[in-house]
Amino acid sequence: MSKVVTFGEIMLRLSTESNQRFSQAKTFSANYGGGEFNVAVSLANYGIEAEFVTRIPDNEIGHAALQEIRKMNVGMSNIQLGGDRLGIYFLETGVGNRGSNVVYDRSNSAIATIEENTFDWAKIFEKKDWFHWSGITPALSEKAAKECLKAIKTAHQLGLKISCDLNYRSKLWKYGKEPFEVMPQMLKYCNVILGDIDTAFFMLGIDKVNPDYENDEQLKKYYSNITDLCPNLETIATTLRYSINASHQKIGGVLFNNNKIYEAPITDVTNVVDRVGTGDAFMGGLLYSLIKTSDNLQRSIEFAVAACSLKHTIVGDYNLATLAEIEKIVNGDNSGKVSR
Amino acid sequence: MSKVVTFGEIMLRLSTESNQRFSQAKTFSANYGGGEFNVAVSLANYGIEAEFVTRIPDNEIGHAALQEIRKMNVGMSNIQLGGDRLGIYFLETGVGNRGSNVVYDRSNSAIATIEENTFDWAKIFEKKDWFHWSGITPALSEKAAKECLKAIKTAHQLGLKISCDLNYRSKLWKYGKEPFEVMPQMLKYCNVILGDIDTAFFMLGIDKVNPDYENDEQLKKYYSNITDLCPNLETIATTLRYSINASHQKIGGVLFNNNKIYEAPITDVTNVVDRVGTGDAFMGGLLYSLIKTSDNLQRSIEFAVAACSLKHTIVGDYNLATLAEIEKIVNGDNSGKVSR
Amino acid sequence: MSKVVTFGEIMLRLSTESNQRFSQAKTFSANYGGGEFNVAVSLANYGIEAEFVTRIPDNEIGHAALQEIRKMNVGMSNIQLGGDRLGIYFLETGVGNRGSNVVYDRSNSAIATIEENTFDWAKIFEKKDWFHWSGITPALSEKAAKECLKAIKTAHQLGLKISCDLNYRSKLWKYGKEPFEVMPQMLKYCNVILGDIDTAFFMLGIDKVNPDYENDEQLKKYYSNITDLCPNLETIATTLRYSINASHQKIGGVLFNNNKIYEAPITDVTNVVDRVGTGDAFMGGLLYSLIKTSDNLQRSIEFAVAACSLKHTIVGDYNLATLAEIEKIVNGDNSGKVSR
Amino acid sequence: MSKVVTFGEIMLRLSTESNQRFSQAKTFSANYGGGEFNVAVSLANYGIEAEFVTRIPDNEIGHAALQEIRKMNVGMSNIQLGGDRLGIYFLETGVGNRGSNVVYDRSNSAIATIEENTFDWAKIFEKKDWFHWSGITPALSEKAAKECLKAIKTAHQLGLKISCDLNYRSKLWKYGKEPFEVMPQMLKYCNVILGDIDTAFFMLGIDKVNPDYENDEQLKKYYSNITDLCPNLETIATTLRYSINASHQKIGGVLFNNNKIYEAPITDVTNVVDRVGTGDAFMGGLLYSLIKTSDNLQRSIEFAVAACSLKHTIVGDYNLATLAEIEKIVNGDNSGKVSR
Amino acid sequence: MSKVVTFGEIMLRLSTESNQRFSQAKTFSANYGGGEFNVAVSLANYGIEAEFVTRIPDNEIGHAALQEIRKMNVGMSNIQLGGDRLGIYFLETGVGNRGSNVVYDRSNSAIATIEENTFDWAKIFEKKDWFHWSGITPALSEKAAKECLKAIKTAHQLGLKISCDLNYRSKLWKYGKEPFEVMPQMLKYCNVILGDIDTAFFMLGIDKVNPDYENDEQLKKYYSNITDLCPNLETIATTLRYSINASHQKIGGVLFNNNKIYEAPITDVTNVVDRVGTGDAFMGGLLYSLIKTSDNLQRSIEFAVAACSLKHTIVGDYNLATLAEIEKIVNGDNSGKVSR
Amino acid sequence: MSKVVTFGEIMLRLSTESNQRFSQAKTFSANYGGGEFNVAVSLANYGIEAEFVTRIPDNEIGHAALQEIRKMNVGMSNIQLGGDRLGIYFLETGVGNRGSNVVYDRSNSAIATIEENTFDWAKIFEKKDWFHWSGITPALSEKAAKECLKAIKTAHQLGLKISCDLNYRSKLWKYGKEPFEVMPQMLKYCNVILGDIDTAFFMLGIDKVNPDYENDEQLKKYYSNITDLCPNLETIATTLRYSINASHQKIGGVLFNNNKIYEAPITDVTNVVDRVGTGDAFMGGLLYSLIKTSDNLQRSIEFAVAACSLKHTIVGDYNLATLAEIEKIVNGDNSGKVSR
Repeated sequence: MSKVVTFGEIMLRLSTESNQRFSQAKTFSANYGGGEFNVAVSLANYGIEAEFVTRIPDNEIGHAALQEIRKMNVGMSNIQLGGDRLGIYFLETGVGNRGSNVVYDRSNSAIATIEENTFDWAKIFEKKDWFHWSGITPALSEKAAKECLKAIKTAHQLGLKISCDLNYRSKLWKYGKEPFEVMPQMLKYCNVILGDIDTAFFMLGIDKVNPDYENDEQLKKYYSNITDLCPNLETIATTLRYSINASHQKIGGVLFNNNKIYEAPITDVTNVVDRVGTGDAFMGGLLYSLIKTSDNLQRSIEFAVAACSLKHTIVGDYNLATLAEIEKIVNGDNSGKVSR
Repeated sequence: MSKVVTFGEIMLRLSTESNQRFSQAKTFSANYGGGEFNVAVSLANYGIEAEFVTRIPDNEIGHAALQEIRKMNVGMSNIQLGGDRLGIYFLETGVGNRGSNVVYDRSNSAIATIEENTFDWAKIFEKKDWFHWSGITPALSEKAAKECLKAIKTAHQLGLKISCDLNYRSKLWKYGKEPFEVMPQMLKYCNVILGDIDTAFFMLGIDKVNPDYENDEQLKKYYSNITDLCPNLETIATTLRYSINASHQKIGGVLFNNNKIYEAPITDVTNVVDRVGTGDAFMGGLLYSLIKTSDNLQRSIEFAVAACSLKHTIVGDYNLATLAEIEKIVNGDNSGKVSR
Repeated sequence: MSKVVTFGEIMLRLSTESNQRFSQAKTFSANYGGGEFNVAVSLANYGIEAEFVTRIPDNEIGHAALQEIRKMNVGMSNIQLGGDRLGIYFLETGVGNRGSNVVYDRSNSAIATIEENTFDWAKIFEKKDWFHWSGITPALSEKAAKECLKAIKTAHQLGLKISCDLNYRSKLWKYGKEPFEVMPQMLKYCNVILGDIDTAFFMLGIDKVNPDYENDEQLKKYYSNITDLCPNLETIATTLRYSINASHQKIGGVLFNNNKIYEAPITDVTNVVDRVGTGDAFMGGLLYSLIKTSDNLQRSIEFAVAACSLKHTIVGDYNLATLAEIEKIVNGDNSGKVSR
Repeated sequence: MSKVVTFGEIMLRLSTESNQRFSQAKTFSANYGGGEFNVAVSLANYGIEAEFVTRIPDNEIGHAALQEIRKMNVGMSNIQLGGDRLGIYFLETGVGNRGSNVVYDRSNSAIATIEENTFDWAKIFEKKDWFHWSGITPALSEKAAKECLKAIKTAHQLGLKISCDLNYRSKLWKYGKEPFEVMPQMLKYCNVILGDIDTAFFMLGIDKVNPDYENDEQLKKYYSNITDLCPNLETIATTLRYSINASHQKIGGVLFNNNKIYEAPITDVTNVVDRVGTGDAFMGGLLYSLIKTSDNLQRSIEFAVAACSLKHTIVGDYNLATLAEIEKIVNGDNSGKVSR
Repeated sequence: MSKVVTFGEIMLRLSTESNQRFSQAKTFSANYGGGEFNVAVSLANYGIEAEFVTRIPDNEIGHAALQEIRKMNVGMSNIQLGGDRLGIYFLETGVGNRGSNVVYDRSNSAIATIEENTFDWAKIFEKKDWFHWSGITPALSEKAAKECLKAIKTAHQLGLKISCDLNYRSKLWKYGKEPFEVMPQMLKYCNVILGDIDTAFFMLGIDKVNPDYENDEQLKKYYSNITDLCPNLETIATTLRYSINASHQKIGGVLFNNNKIYEAPITDVTNVVDRVGTGDAFMGGLLYSLIKTSDNLQRSIEFAVAACSLKHTIVGDYNLATLAEIEKIVNGDNSGKVSR
Repeated sequence: MSKVVTFGEIMLRLSTESNQRFSQAKTFSANYGGGEFNVAVSLANYGIEAEFVTRIPDNEIGHAALQEIRKMNVGMSNIQLGGDRLGIYFLETGVGNRGSNVVYDRSNSAIATIEENTFDWAKIFEKKDWFHWSGITPALSEKAAKECLKAIKTAHQLGLKISCDLNYRSKLWKYGKEPFEVMPQMLKYCNVILGDIDTAFFMLGIDKVNPDYENDEQLKKYYSNITDLCPNLETIATTLRYSINASHQKIGGVLFNNNKIYEAPITDVTNVVDRVGTGDAFMGGLLYSLIKTSDNLQRSIEFAVAACSLKHTIVGDYNLATLAEIEKIVNGDNSGKVSR
């Protein structure tokens, strides 16, 4: 069994209920989540031993986040207590032609204000096989970016596989650095990258190309542009998402490996309950299937897409779909029939 | 005015709210329902005098069920108090490609542990015209199956019309008997059966055929296979249901009577609010229309389909659509316009 | 900046929650709204100074309505306290093929029982440019109709632009007068009318014609029938609404001005969260765009349709969409993507 | 078994939740109740056959009220459909030194606008033993007062016992008559009156006396002043209530019969959950005990006080305490221990 | 650090909200708890390594219970999956003179139907110091009683300290055995017993004595009657509870050890939020303090009483008070001031 | 009519519901408040023109705060938009012997990071009579303290009365300065101070004295120690609060003016609904009464105490009690009777 470490931020998510707008909210639903934690939850749900590394403030809100991590059966023995506050994000869930809106309130969070040498990465990675991070952590602060780079390098030295979800967020990256100044030196150690081609190009400093995801030859060319800059890269995957409206998405996927393209067909996802975390669900499904069915990349991309599509029906940041539910969809049953 | 008796189990239904999964539920919505009770509610709503016969434990949860029966204007004078517990089922309502999930907790319920001679069926059926039961009751326990058979035979002797909704539930039938060992001797007294052909065949011990519901000649052949084994049978009806996903169903119906096929066209049902009880709504609509408009079987099947389709928009086990609302849909208005 | 006055009733709206029917409701959501107030809120949201004139009872429920008006930044300095009760309407929000249902309980409200000379219209209209009313107020009572006519005449004398949303409600008009006995003398002062052709004809006493909204020449003819009877009329607009079901609407618009037809294309609106007030959102968008972009009538009708379509995703009577959100849709982005 | 008829109004009660003030309420809890209906519910709960007579509008809100009456097992066969609206009252439940506040919105309700000859009282009272009314009905409107008097006279002629809860409400009596102009001719037929001495004097036109409820001789004198004006009166009872604050009440009772005084000791009631309907709970307990234990008036007053005190712990208008719970308190056990 | 094992049942608790009665409940709050689990949670909260042993059905409701155990940081590695159902109990929380009411629906639960040899107790007790059980488990079924005895004997052989909370529940013990037929052979191995003298006498087959808890000499005599029958017994503790009403309790404690009596003074507990689990909170506090401060039995009993009193303010079955909060109360600060 | 300006922070308050602890919260109630805003709301409710000056971030959460200010009829024309975030505080409302707990998350809020010259105080104070601030603002950050001092000096120069609520919060003052280094130079301009003697001494750098509030001579001495350091000081008031437990407070007040002591008697406040903001309610009541009834200081202190006591029954940060409700209590009626 593979042992995976993910590193990043867990936040308190405060979302409006019953389709309310921010200004109407008299209550907020409280969830806890964050891209890299969400991936760890997916893996733990699928039976992969997963651990989440972060820094959490030693107050009651931080303790509630810790309880959430424990509840989801994610390893937590290397989490550090410290810092002033848990990051928060406010979410107004969209519907129809009104999109979801996120207001970040995560500046000066425990992880963004992390001090050097908080984590002993060599010790953390002992007996571990895989390290997962995302483009959100380097977007938080200079300190977080440094720590992330340190983790990546240590993981690489110790021979772990490294994966990254590019996760570009335009409302972050506020500390004075552009992604292309920070990301390339991190991505070059990665074995697996999740992200669309233009985001990868943007982070690697290549000009925008607006790719045609139905043109395999073009895809191979663009993907090879990425692998040129990321010498350790084996697998690149992209979620194909067509947003009809906030309640109706079309989701598919493309995976590039060893100069071959694998595609999962586009499926309708309607009605969307919660759009947030669906990329993390894709990432979690991808990691699981790469680890478990690495000899069947076609099934890997289909599993990732199915995990992603199911997450749209689930409230909260992380995916609560079971292996059996995802596999039913991979096997072609999208009917949503009652089980009784 | 016809007087109908239905016999079966009423349960406490505990359903998760706001699209939550079971593991997320901090509250459960409480409803009371059960296939045969739901049919009685439909009939009472349409102005048919209906009575529900069951056994309910003499505790506060049982009393709450009794209050629900009274509230819905269903006759309750022959309900017996006794037994240890009210059956429960947990419901996680699906959405999109995640189907609803039912966890039964109905073993050892008051009705499943019923003792012989609890009910005086001859007295119950005095001045009654119709007896309705379903395939759920014989699936609960040997004792429930016996009592159900006794009721059916008494009803037959006293000249009541008898109807059955086959209602196969794979999570029931746990007491050591297969449906085909129990159902045929019950179905042979029935005048009206609701169920698809393969379920009927399965329960009557005939091999699966996977019928084509657009092929009238084939349908007639299959239906005559059923009537061969059920000499009292006059009318067979089937809900045609195509599950696009949990939020989007397509519903139609077929009715077979006197070697003629009547069909109600398939209509889209979206967005689905509550899938559970829609078959009971069909059954309730069918009984109502057979009783009230027995000379217009085309309208009967259309009424049943319209009742069923409206139930998908209503929370809870039973159908709260009014006669006027159903008839508006039978008359072709599915527009869902505001009335003001 | 233009200054707009609207006149009408604000009600307490009590709506069932979570798709419940009236008979299931153990709680009602409380909102405050009314056609003319809703228009004022839209304008205030878009930065137009707007004032609402009405009469409100001097009790705690009336005070709550006043607080709502203040909260929405709508002028309230001419509101009169008095009367016995705030009008109420009960709303059961529909879904799928079950339409929303409104039960009015607004008889004898403060505004319906208004006494003569309650308002000093000449003073109210000082330094104002626009007066908006709707066909609901004359439908409430003889007294309300009289006061409305008085306001219209005063506004006309003082040179304000006058707009009307015809807003026919079959459950109102119970005081003994038919619309065509009351409305023509009011409409003849109007510069802008919102309403479909048949409603306008009905209120003006012209026979029903069932117009084809894709036939521009026919439209011009019918619209000129209206302008013949309304000599001040410059602009007529109509919401084109095709109700697939209560959860799925198709919305477009037509605007007639100076013998030209401007059309906004039909767009899908799904999933509908709250159908009520979408006409007022159209009206608010229309007024805003007529005031702000009067030289671009094509954009005006598109803005009105976009405002209307967004309102379908927002709970409550009035539109909380922002200028930026509406303009994004006018500019063609209906994708409902997450902003983060 | 005695058969009791009560006559009056049932209203929709809209109460704020979680200690909110009216201006904070985004939801209202919906209950249905009214003094005379509440008494009928108490009796039905204790096993006395009780029927409620009223007029209810034929709309969805009225239908919900009808369902509530049926649910509580109260007879409803003489209820008339008609009128425009169901009366409403808004309730802000107090706590500590902030008292509960009621805003009535019951003018022009179905019962207040009742037409003559709506009810055939002679037929209603067939095979009935007891008629209960309260001072609220004559306070609603001239029409309601007339109908009430007619009912009382008919009941008297047919030999029913008649009881009245004086129930003075300062926010009613708005139609131009004072209580002393209306009530004496009604009270003179009563066999049982519930109310404090000063209220009785006020309604009978006697000057205020501010009685000392610990002075039996004075009480006898004052009560005889009442019986002088009410020749049919056998029993007068008074709730003794000392309001420490909205969360803490002290409740006792006095009963006068055949020139004897019976007293139930004052007990602490804390914490108060719902103060409304506690007088009706007293009345319901008093009627039950007068009917069932008429030979033990000491127990009667104690039963009424115990029923009243328990109602303070129950949400809603009517008393859901069981006979067993009340008797436990009559027998001295106020400990509120867990039953398990 | 001591390692404690507790054994028993964890149930789904369904409680009515906002002071509702069972018949009013449209939703139930879902919690998970049970006497022995609650004790384990207390210990885990105080930093003692605690493990809970039970049997849980392998369905979604069982999985939710497992997640709750994990969330609370209680060891779960020896929990067995199996059986048909998770036990349920319904709770109506009392207030004032209306006591809380529990309806058990725990027959045939996974633990009650446990098969022999489900648990390998010798392995479970490896490296453990303490075993805690309660009188509830032997009350569930013959099978549960047998397994409990087997666990006790094994723990005794392996040298663990054994504690028991007598926990008599009159609504259990339905399988044909009386407590005194079952409990003595279990209690004789116990080192610590929690329970009042009359309950202990009842379970040991001694006649009721109604002890005076302020008479130390009498207490010593009665406690020595118990130790005579329980030769391993070192410590007996009793919660002193005086129930003023359901909202107001008075709580103290007595501890007997080595022929000495230690008393914690009676303190007022008001307002009670949740009475259930307060005995388990006492037990958890007692075990913690016996383990941690075994040389200060006066502080032990005070800590147990403080833990118990704080639990009354906390919703749910188990105690969420922190060590710091309990110690503040032990140190005399009951003021409930705001911390900010 | 006096015109009052208050300056400080408005925060989003996120409080747990239904007595839950932080770790149990799945939803948070959202309110907006802060000491100085709360005082402005009180004044506006009593008819005094009040304006609130602060800095609020230009995002959706900030806009919601602005809407709240407008809703409460508090002037907002000098509020500046800017900064990164709105301060937040989490509140766990206590009950019984468990106190409320506040977790501040207000670092780096818009007001704490305020830049110099954000406000033009001379313009803000035009035509104003009174400036109110509190000890919270200088506790937030060096920048906030500077701005506060600037406002105070300007107000003093322009001849406004100045009042301060000392409001010591041990969880603030984290930026490196102690209160006594900052507060004296601010307090010396104040005309009115609210705070207990030890807090005043602490902030002014005088040693703790633990005063006896029943010893008038001692009080005069201590108060004169304060006035010695605050030459502009006319009135000092102190809330006397004895916390029996979180649900039961005893509240009185002392006012010192012109060497005279005025006392409001201690009254019981039970049950406490919301303890937070009760000091601000006292302050609001005090300012109102000083402004309106400055010739009756006995009534002033009684009004402040009554306002404070009523606030304990009201959810949220600010006081929604009306003038009439407060005056009823000042006049001696604490009975909490129903008004109907």
